Amino acid sequence: MYDFSADSADCARAVEAGLSQYLTATQLSGPGIPADRLVEAMRHGALEGGKRLRPLLVRQAAAIFSVPKEATLSTGLAVEMIHCYSLIHDDLPAMDNDDMRRGRPTVHKAYDDATAILAGDALLTHAFSMLADEACHADPTVRIRLVTELASGAGAGGMVGGQMRDIEGEKGGFTPDEISTMQAMKTGALIRASVRMGAILGGAEPRALSALTAYAEAAGRAFQLADDILDVTATAETMGKATGKDADKNKQTLVARLGVDGAREALAQIVNEAVGCLRTFGPKADGLRATARYFASREK
Amino acid sequence: MYDFSADSADCARAVEAGLSQYLTATQLSGPGIPADRLVEAMRHGALEGGKRLRPLLVRQAAAIFSVPKEATLSTGLAVEMIHCYSLIHDDLPAMDNDDMRRGRPTVHKAYDDATAILAGDALLTHAFSMLADEACHADPTVRIRLVTELASGAGAGGMVGGQMRDIEGEKGGFTPDEISTMQAMKTGALIRASVRMGAILGGAEPRALSALTAYAEAAGRAFQLADDILDVTATAETMGKATGKDADKNKQTLVARLGVDGAREALAQIVNEAVGCLRTFGPKADGLRATARYFASREK
Repeated sequence: MYDFSADSADCARAVEAGLSQYLTATQLSGPGIPADRLVEAMRHGALEGGKRLRPLLVRQAAAIFSVPKEATLSTGLAVEMIHCYSLIHDDLPAMDNDDMRRGRPTVHKAYDDATAILAGDALLTHAFSMLADEACHADPTVRIRLVTELASGAGAGGMVGGQMRDIEGEKGGFTPDEISTMQAMKTGALIRASVRMGAILGGAEPRALSALTAYAEAAGRAFQLADDILDVTATAETMGKATGKDADKNKQTLVARLGVDGAREALAQIVNEAVGCLRTFGPKADGLRATARYFASREK
Repeated sequence: MYDFSADSADCARAVEAGLSQYLTATQLSGPGIPADRLVEAMRHGALEGGKRLRPLLVRQAAAIFSVPKEATLSTGLAVEMIHCYSLIHDDLPAMDNDDMRRGRPTVHKAYDDATAILAGDALLTHAFSMLADEACHADPTVRIRLVTELASGAGAGGMVGGQMRDIEGEKGGFTPDEISTMQAMKTGALIRASVRMGAILGGAEPRALSALTAYAEAAGRAFQLADDILDVTATAETMGKATGKDADKNKQTLVARLGVDGAREALAQIVNEAVGCLRTFGPKADGLRATARYFASREK
């Protein structure tokens, strides 16, 4: 019987420990030694953070192919470093201009804008160092596929491109299809990459990879829709960050079109769709099933 | 007889064409299609740019091992995308606050700060896509080594870390050794990575790689010192960007300590040191020799 709370807590602990060990001057050194300030800002932006859902997805997708959880950690750390860099950059005054994140000052408030830009750049860069290291996987062909997958999810046709579309959407006038595309890129692409990277670690055949990709795309939509609903319904205290900002800034979300109740119905339907993609995998996919359901039930 | 002008012009043309072909919505697509604005900003920051010296170094180092120049292009494009992203982010108001670059408005002036941050992030990300693609090199082990090398040169112990140290140095009080370390990281690390990546493409043995690394480190110091001298002596018109800014902002350079004439003597000595590292390679290293000498003679 899969225990979501236990597995996700275990994964979050492993990610926290892994990042804390990796984000040090010794580990990050190259031709030179990083400035203390840069390492501290990277740690501020990456540690004590969130639910670590993306590394959990890597672990859960790999579990279908009986990959031990320890063997998924480097890949999970890499995708989490990408997620954390994106938050640091998104919080900048030039972007969302957020002062608080997870109940603490954002990196640019704790340090300054220049340091936050550089800390984000460094996390992004070292995500790829992490995947390229042989500790990630013994087979260089697998490691290269992971690099391709992560860059594709994080890049112009994925997360960064979605962020650009989101900023353009603030000016108004997006159609429902354009909203979906933007969200699929901004949030969905990295969730998709996480699941696919887990499958790649497990040596998934094309057919299994394709089913897991369909799962991930539905799960990503569920995650984003839940986030949009929470943005409308949650209080700032519960979320540890400013809420209601999407409405303030005229961001285009499905909740604005469907209303909260309509959005909750759509969410339940998308979760069913996600779980339906896993039917051939049996109990080893219970982790992914639980995560899709968690997306619909989470309160922050 | 090696012809520096012809080879560097040929390399610059190939890089321009390669980047122009790669930086399109079709090539950059992932799970989604990039926004036009993002692709345009990436092109603004990467095309019609500079001397393309880093791809030239890749090509010249690989030439020692008889690698055809066409087989070095993807690697050259990757390192150039890293260089271009770093310029876009460095030019931001939160960093150096430059309005002009290569005689044109910087990306954040032509677009806005948010777009410039995202365009830089996307170029950084896709540099790794470029290396991971099998068009870069047939052997995945080589491609993985290139990823490791580029991330190490661009990361916290390299370029980004050097930029952080440079900002800290503006507050004053750096020792001469600290200036050298900062410069070796900020500018030297990517030059070092370029030469080493060329050597890796050529299958260099450890001993050859080590000699080429020593060359690259000296060449990097020459490049930086030449840049510092130019910053003092050149006019804004020749450089196509604001000059004298280093003195304005109390940046720490060797020129401030040695004076222009003393710095020119030191530069000649470093170039000799760089060329001395190549003595075992014969005429196939004439490209790298010419580039080291070019660093000392360039006027912009």
